[in-house]
Amino acid sequence: MKRTLAVLVQNKSGLLARVAGLFSRRGFNIDSLAVGRTDNPSVSRMTIVVEGDDRVLEQVTKQLRKLVEVIKVQDVTRMEFVERGLALIKVNAEPAKRAEIIQIVEIFRAHIVDIGRKTLVVEVTGDEGKINALVNALKPFGIREMVRTGRIAMLRGTKDIITNGKEVEA
Amino acid sequence: MKRTLAVLVQNKSGLLARVAGLFSRRGFNIDSLAVGRTDNPSVSRMTIVVEGDDRVLEQVTKQLRKLVEVIKVQDVTRMEFVERGLALIKVNAEPAKRAEIIQIVEIFRAHIVDIGRKTLVVEVTGDEGKINALVNALKPFGIREMVRTGRIAMLRGTKDIITNGKEVEA
Repeated sequence: MKRTLAVLVQNKSGLLARVAGLFSRRGFNIDSLAVGRTDNPSVSRMTIVVEGDDRVLEQVTKQLRKLVEVIKVQDVTRMEFVERGLALIKVNAEPAKRAEIIQIVEIFRAHIVDIGRKTLVVEVTGDEGKINALVNALKPFGIREMVRTGRIAMLRGTKDIITNGKEVEA
Repeated sequence: MKRTLAVLVQNKSGLLARVAGLFSRRGFNIDSLAVGRTDNPSVSRMTIVVEGDDRVLEQVTKQLRKLVEVIKVQDVTRMEFVERGLALIKVNAEPAKRAEIIQIVEIFRAHIVDIGRKTLVVEVTGDEGKINALVNALKPFGIREMVRTGRIAMLRGTKDIITNGKEVEA
């Protein structure tokens, strides 16, 4: 089963290596990892999607909590949350093919962010399924390269994952 | 100086920890890291933004290239590239404040992806500067939480970073 963890950490050099090492030593394959700043410059937030059985994941979560730089770990898997990732896809696009590609891009509410003589770069955001569907729709034209971020997750409504270690309801 | 590296790697468990460890042992602070799949299921692509002097970064790049799972490392800093990141921002939004927030969201071509009784979740893509500008515009309303991906980068036009280790021109 896939599990999504939201992890708040202090912004320290080397922490990413320690967190990633913790998962790999247990044989957990990280399906997706995203790390970025929060509105507090000394705090970063990781979103980690892993596949594995509940018992071992619980152990890893416990070890994560033991790291002094880790402020909060929350498993949001069974909660209501928004999940999003971002991809840039460079697709072959001879001028005669452009109209057809633009149509697909519009259907997915994606955007064209660069145009070359024979290529287009498409930017798309969405959950895993939506991005995969767009990739499949563009495949027949020839995908030259693709780069994706990890997924990020946020609880819906007024439930927050906040830095003081407590969930709050507005 | 900030440097942006595009790194193609074989999809192996534990590699992320090794790559991150390589940077932290040298005292490089990773400013942004994104990792995701490519159109080839056995190949992942990392985008790493680091700050540091040229000489040491060159050493780290060399060591990266020595890892057997690393297929290609390209420093795109001085090339023409598209840079994008993604953020979800949960902002306080009493009904009386919503119109004003929606106006800001439209100016930034961002999107509202969730609405709670007293909150809105805004999704935005763009370079570092654009995302920071939106965060600043939303701050007066009260940002409840924020989660960001690392940045991803893609060369403009027909120059690719491809899996066979050579750059090609269409």
